[in-house]
Order: sequence, then structure tokens, then C-alpha cells
Amino acid sequence: MSRGIHLALHPYGVGGPGQHGLWKDPRVAKNASIDIGYYIRQAQAAEHALFDALFIVDSQFINATYPAHYLNRLEPLTLLSAVATHTRHIGLVGTASSTYNSPFNLARRFASLDLISGGRAGWNVVTSFDTGTSRNFGLDEHLDYATRYGRALEFVQVARGLWDSYEDDAFPADVERGVFLDPRRLHALDHVGEHFRVAGPLNVSRSPQGQPVIFQAGVSAEGRDLAARVAEGVYAPGGTLEQAREYYADVKRRAAAHGRDPEHLKVFLHGGPVVAATDARARRREREIFEEDNDFDRNLALLGRSFGAYDFGVHDLDAPFPDVAHLAEKGGRTGAAQIIRRAREQELTLRQVVESVAAFRESPFVGSPTTVADTIEEWFAAGTLDGINLAFRTDDDLELFVDGVVPLLRERGLFRTAYEADTLRGHLGLPVPANRHTRVRERAGG
Amino acid sequence: MSRGIHLALHPYGVGGPGQHGLWKDPRVAKNASIDIGYYIRQAQAAEHALFDALFIVDSQFINATYPAHYLNRLEPLTLLSAVATHTRHIGLVGTASSTYNSPFNLARRFASLDLISGGRAGWNVVTSFDTGTSRNFGLDEHLDYATRYGRALEFVQVARGLWDSYEDDAFPADVERGVFLDPRRLHALDHVGEHFRVAGPLNVSRSPQGQPVIFQAGVSAEGRDLAARVAEGVYAPGGTLEQAREYYADVKRRAAAHGRDPEHLKVFLHGGPVVAATDARARRREREIFEEDNDFDRNLALLGRSFGAYDFGVHDLDAPFPDVAHLAEKGGRTGAAQIIRRAREQELTLRQVVESVAAFRESPFVGSPTTVADTIEEWFAAGTLDGINLAFRTDDDLELFVDGVVPLLRERGLFRTAYEADTLRGHLGLPVPANRHTRVRERAGG
Ligand SMILES: Cc1cc2nc3c(=O)[nH]c(=O)nc-3n(C[C@H](O)[C@H](O)[C@H](O)COP(=O)(O)O)c2cc1C
Ligand SMILES: Cc1cc2nc3c(=O)[nH]c(=O)nc-3n(C[C@H](O)[C@H](O)[C@H](O)COP(=O)(O)O)c2cc1C
Repeated sequence: MSRGIHLALHPYGVGGPGQHGLWKDPRVAKNASIDIGYYIRQAQAAEHALFDALFIVDSQFINATYPAHYLNRLEPLTLLSAVATHTRHIGLVGTASSTYNSPFNLARRFASLDLISGGRAGWNVVTSFDTGTSRNFGLDEHLDYATRYGRALEFVQVARGLWDSYEDDAFPADVERGVFLDPRRLHALDHVGEHFRVAGPLNVSRSPQGQPVIFQAGVSAEGRDLAARVAEGVYAPGGTLEQAREYYADVKRRAAAHGRDPEHLKVFLHGGPVVAATDARARRREREIFEEDNDFDRNLALLGRSFGAYDFGVHDLDAPFPDVAHLAEKGGRTGAAQIIRRAREQELTLRQVVESVAAFRESPFVGSPTTVADTIEEWFAAGTLDGINLAFRTDDDLELFVDGVVPLLRERGLFRTAYEADTLRGHLGLPVPANRHTRVRERAGG
Repeated sequence: MSRGIHLALHPYGVGGPGQHGLWKDPRVAKNASIDIGYYIRQAQAAEHALFDALFIVDSQFINATYPAHYLNRLEPLTLLSAVATHTRHIGLVGTASSTYNSPFNLARRFASLDLISGGRAGWNVVTSFDTGTSRNFGLDEHLDYATRYGRALEFVQVARGLWDSYEDDAFPADVERGVFLDPRRLHALDHVGEHFRVAGPLNVSRSPQGQPVIFQAGVSAEGRDLAARVAEGVYAPGGTLEQAREYYADVKRRAAAHGRDPEHLKVFLHGGPVVAATDARARRREREIFEEDNDFDRNLALLGRSFGAYDFGVHDLDAPFPDVAHLAEKGGRTGAAQIIRRAREQELTLRQVVESVAAFRESPFVGSPTTVADTIEEWFAAGTLDGINLAFRTDDDLELFVDGVVPLLRERGLFRTAYEADTLRGHLGLPVPANRHTRVRERAGG
């Protein structure tokens, strides 16, 4: 089944970008995003459907224009640790910034989650999208692009080194000999690099999956390359089938170029399916959602987010899209550069750009259960995805997918009928990394 | 009952300082310190006994000479978040360093724990005892004393500012008016200080107790002063009745000098009670434990920990205690300075110092249930404590205390017979701090 499709659940809470009005839905609890019970129920529903993982995105910056879910939400690892003890199989992926954390602390927190969950932790490494984050961490300016990505790579390398501090047989706990720890199985790291100096060792041992699974979500060449070098899952930007295929082929090729097995880098597409009894009803529902949530002023403010919290309100909405190329360049902002390119090619006004960016969030997975299953199968066969990160507006929408679409995927042999593993690596068909010190020792015949 | 004694449980796991041999006890699971089930059961047992809090200590540095529990243990907030959803009343206090964290991240994690637990979070602020911690965070040297304590004070002030980002009525979530957030109730912090610049706002709202409770554990004048200025609970160093009384009076006096109500700073003494059917049996048990755990080499290594990871192994054990005053001065190490003073006054050898430091850890609470209850009552009446942080070797020892001593304390009106509150502040009789922005607004008649 590791050749099947992987499914993760991305909870929307009271609603993120493109979901500004979600909190108004009477089925959505107004405190969902800060209610641990909401997350536990989401995880349990996803586990009941045999999903691979719960996937929690995050940021460390807000202002009053941000979507409801962003304004007030639980820190991902605190959240996932609570969820861990109320689930038994599902993977638990949390987003954390490599720009605004230190490796020892973050490695320790993920290692702890990995032990608490029995080997189900994953870390979605981001370099922090929101420019304003820097001012919450004593910096006037967001670290520049190259620094952010250089730091991210070294951060993951350090975390992995710390996670191998103890070999798996480090604790004989032999009462007769009076030996709790075998000190030869404890290893300092003594890392000295461009961004970090970390002596180690870490005071947490390995879980049944060896190390947490590394995810990454980056669009640029640097982001793709980071994913290709160190990630085992990637949260892909999506887009059209053609764009998704290009992205998929590109990151797999990059992984191979780094000497890795491309099968060990799983590409997850974002999917906000809209399922209804018939295709016509699903499309009607999609239009309703779009109109309901299409708050122009919010979308204008959020467009600025992609350009480093730029205020587009100062420009004429019906004049040609303003020249903001310097903002995209300065931040190395790939998404922003794409928007500028499209605006120029299609000669769009600022108003048209805001509207088209909102429309861009539409999902390919809209229709009756059969249509959605067909589309997923088609996109899978076309080489665009290994998995889908599914976001649902309400529990009803989750249920429509789980009861309508998932059984069809099962019938077609595309999704598991039972958990075959207890760890996230197991679900994803990823190998358990051997401890580096054990490997060296065994190679030396020690 | 806020005039009664407060009881917290400090889990020993597989054994900390002075408990080197605990892991050998057949009743102690070899993986207790990394088993979330162990902590959940400890918390549930403590909650069943109506204790005020579970108290988790921590450090971010180890080497192979450290006690078993320190070598491999879960990160406190990840741990407590999992415990939160399996308990309903008990407070959850986690230790975290103000030296090796950043305020935005740590404030967010404690705010999340506070929401997940429904207002039961506490933060034990430490400046990191272990000198070697610095090398896990890119620094060759531990920050010096004044910097550590200056940073700690400003850190708590920033965290409290961030915790007040949202006023309690910030989210009308009014569907008819289409207003989720009232932006006038969201406040940036814009803190610029000596150690931190933090813009805010925090993306987490307040819990039913307003803000997490601040604990502190420091011995020096600087430590006491930090406690007196910002702490609501203090984990006191203990010692003889006379020393404990002096400490208690001193921190209360300091709190009053800072314009605070001394009742709002609760002093917790460390207590590792040894309870048995008779006084003689309890004393025998205490001697057994002492001899069993009295590993001289370990204690020698741990003595070095108090002097900034100094290796006393280079000195003659039977010569007078070496001149290491410069180490105590350099780190501003109060505990170390006390040891030096005592060694000089009593003309002790190094060997005698190692032995006396181990003996210093003895508990005053040893005897039959009646004797232990009497002693607690006596120490309480003598003005040495508002609460006790209780550490037990095994579940049997916890049970002996809960079934034997706690009912006697209840009979004497010294401990609650039911929870009267659902928050940690409620248990401790601490006021819920009004949001600073609401206060200003209401004062202005807004
Ligand atoms: C599907 C997806 C999910 C993302 N989730 C997050 C997130 O949770 N937090 C965050 O700071 N950034 C997130 N990002 C942003 C990326 O980390 C990255 O900064 C952004 O995609 C720009 O790519 P680049 O940095 O490679 O140019 C996400 C990106 C994508 C495509
Ligand atoms: C009862 C007690 C518990 C403590 N717990 C911790 C702890 O969990 N982690 C830590 O780094 N330091 C801990 N400390 C150390 C203090 O933070 C402090 O560094 C030490 O007591 C020296 O005091 P001073 O810094 O005021 O000189 C504890 C101290 C005491 C007295």
C-alpha cells in the first residue's frame, strides 16, 4: 500500500486564507482553533478513516487583517502532543520555523512528541512566510532568502545529529551490573557550522520510527532543493495539473540528483475537495463558498502578505498592477514573482489580480464522489502527487469525503483498508534511518 | 482553604540527584522518564488526592555522569500538554529557561498549554543551572549572572505583555454584523528593552485564569529578588527549619518591598517524605535509601555541576577542600559559595564535602503518618512554607503519603477536602490578573 495514495488532514479551524467567512457557518464552533477537543475529534475522525497524518500549519505573526484561524490558534507541538495520547496510529505533523527557533530546543520538542506518540511525529520545516515575524524575534528585517534557506538546511542536519545522540541499545538498565546507561552509546554532536554551534548530546532517545519525518513547503528553487536534500515529504504548491506535474517531476529529479531514492520524498498536494451528491450540486456549492468568502478587502490585505506585508491599499484598484518587482526580489519571493509575471502577461489591474489570486485557490477535486475519485486517480496516474493534504470546511464535508470518496479509492486499490504500521514512517513507506553511530560501529565490525 | 497548605507532586521518574539507584527498584519502570503514561498516571494520582499541581523540573544539558532521570526525559511542555487532556483540575507547572528561549515562542507555548488545560498552566522560570547548556545554544560561556537575571526579569515582563494581546471580549464572533475580531481589542506590545525587542501581538488569547502562574527557583539575592518582583510561586531551596524560615521571611519581605501582597507569592519547600508504619521503620528506610543511592563517584561528579561543570576528580579526596572560590564568584554561584563557606568553617576535606552535600538532601518529613503530619504542621506554623513540592521514590511511597498523611492534614483543616476551583490560580488563591488594556480602558471610562 505504500504505492497507494497517502491522505493527510489539514484542519481549517475557523478558517484560513480563502476561507474568511467559514467561522459564520453554524456548524463551525467559534472557538475551534483554540479548542483542543476540536483537534482531537479531527484526528480521531481521520484515524477512523485510516489517514496517514494530521497536518498542522502555523505562523508566528499576525495583524488584525489576518483570517480568523490565524488570529488565535494553538502552538502546533503543544497541540499535537495532546492529540497524540488520544490516537494510536495517525501521523502527527507540525509546522515549525527554522528561522525563529534554535535547533536544540526544537529537536528536543519533536523528539519528545515522537516518543509520546510512539513514533508518529513529523516536522514541516518552514523558513517563515510572514516577514513581520522578524520583529517578534528582535530583528528589524526578516532574514534574507539565502540565509533563511542555508539556515534551514543546517538546522535539519543539526536536529538529525541530535536525534542520534543515543544509540538504540544505550540503556541496558541492567540491575545486576548496576549499569543504567552504557556511556559508549551516548554521543556528543560537536557541530560547528555557518549558522549554528551545538555541542549536544540531546537528552532524549529515539522513538520506534528512529527520527521524526521531515516535511518541507517551499516553492522557489532554493525551497525545492532543500526538500530534495533533506525532506521526506513536501507540501506542494498545487496549481493546474500541468504545474503540479512539473513540480512533482522537478523535486523527484532533484532528489535523485542528490543521490536519494525519489520514492523517499513524498509529494503532498493541497486539496480542498467539494463533494456533493451530483457534479452540478458540488459546483454550485463551490460557487457559493467562493462568493461567501470572497471578501475583497481581506484578499487585498492578504495579497500584501505575499510581498512582505506590503500595503496595496495605496494603489488605484483599476490601474495596471503596480510595479512591485523590487519587493519580490528583495525577499526572494517566488509566489510574488509569479503573480507579477502573470499580471504583466495578462495585463491585469490590481483588482483583477486580487480576484484571480482568490480564484487560484480553487480545488481540482470538485464533484460527485465518483468524479472526485476519478480526478484523484487521474492526477495520481499523471504523476502529480503521492498524497493529498485534505482541508475540509466542516465535519459534514469531511464525512462526505470519507464516506463517499474513500471507499471508491479503496475499491480501486488506491488507499489502504487497514493500518499496516504504527508509525508515520510505516504509513508513508519510508525506511527507519539507522543511527549514524551504530552504522559506523557496525561497519567497523565493533 | 487558600490559607491551608498547598501540595504539588514532583515526579522523580527513574531518579535524579541523590536518587542514583532508584531505577534499580523493581517497582520503577526502566522507561518511566520517557513514558507519557507514567506522567499521566502520576498526575491522575495527584489529582485524585486533590493536589494543587504537577511540577516538572528540567535542564537542557547532560553528560554521561548525570542521574538516570536527567539523561533521557520528555520536554516539559510537550509532556504537560499530553497530561492536560487526561486531568481536569490539577495545575501543570513546567520548567523552562529564560536564558535559552525566546519570549515570543515560549509565551505562545505556555499560552497554548493554558488554553488546552482550561487555565491550569504554570511556568517555573529558571536561568539554567547547568553551565554546559550554553554550548548547546552557540555560546562558549554561560551568560553571566547579572545578564541571566536581567534577562529573566525582562523575559517575564515581555511574556506577560504578550499574554495580554487580546482582551477577553476581543472575539464577538457576531455573524449578523460579520465581525469575528473586534480589532480595538487586539494590542501590539512594541517592547524595546535591554535584552529583547518584541513587537507582538501574540496569536493566542487568554485562558480562564488570565495568565499562566509564574514560579521561580533561585537561591541568590538576585534569584530572591526576581521571585519577589514577578513570581507567584517559588520553589525554595529548603535546608534546616531555621534556614527555611529565614528564606520564607526574606522573600515575603522582598515582595512587600516591591509593593506586592506577600500572600501572592507562595513558597513551596521541596519534600521527599519517607513514611512508614512507625517512626523507627521510616528512619530505617531512609538510611537504606541513603546507602543504596550514595554513589560517591556520582556525587563527586554532581558536586562539580554546582561549580560550572568543574572536575573535582583532579584533587586529593582527603586533603582540605580545594580553593575554588573563583568558580563560585565567576558564575555568581550561591549554592557553590555556601558549600565553600561551610567547608572552610568546619574544616572539611573534599570527601567530607561530597558526603555532606548528599546528606543535605535529607527530608525533614520522615516518620509515621502522624509524625509526618505533625512535622508538616509544625513547619507550616513556623512560617517556612505555603506549600510542599513532594517527590516520591515509588508509587507505593506516594500511596503511603496520600492514604496516611493527607487525611490527617485534612482532619486538622490544613488541606482541602474538595477542589473549589478549576484553575491553578484558583487552587493557590491567586487573583486573576486583569488584562492591562481592559484596565486602562475601564479606568478611562471607555
Ligand atoms: C502548501 C504550502 C503550505 C505552507 N505552509 C506554511 C506554513 O504553515 N507556515 C509558513 O510559515 N509558511 C508556509 N508555507 C510557505 C513556505 O514555507 C514558503 O515560504 C513559501 O511557499 C514561499 O516559498 P519559497 O520560500 O520557496 O519562495 C507554505 C507553502 C506552501 C506551498
Ligand atoms: C528547588 C529548586 C529547583 C530547581 N529546579 C531547577 C530546574 O528544574 N532547572 C534548572 O535549570 N535550575 C533549577 N534550579 C536552579 C535554579 O534555577 C538556580 O539556578 C539555582 O538555584 C542557583 O540559584 P541562583 O541562580 O539564584 O544562584 C532549582 C533550584 C532549586 C532551589
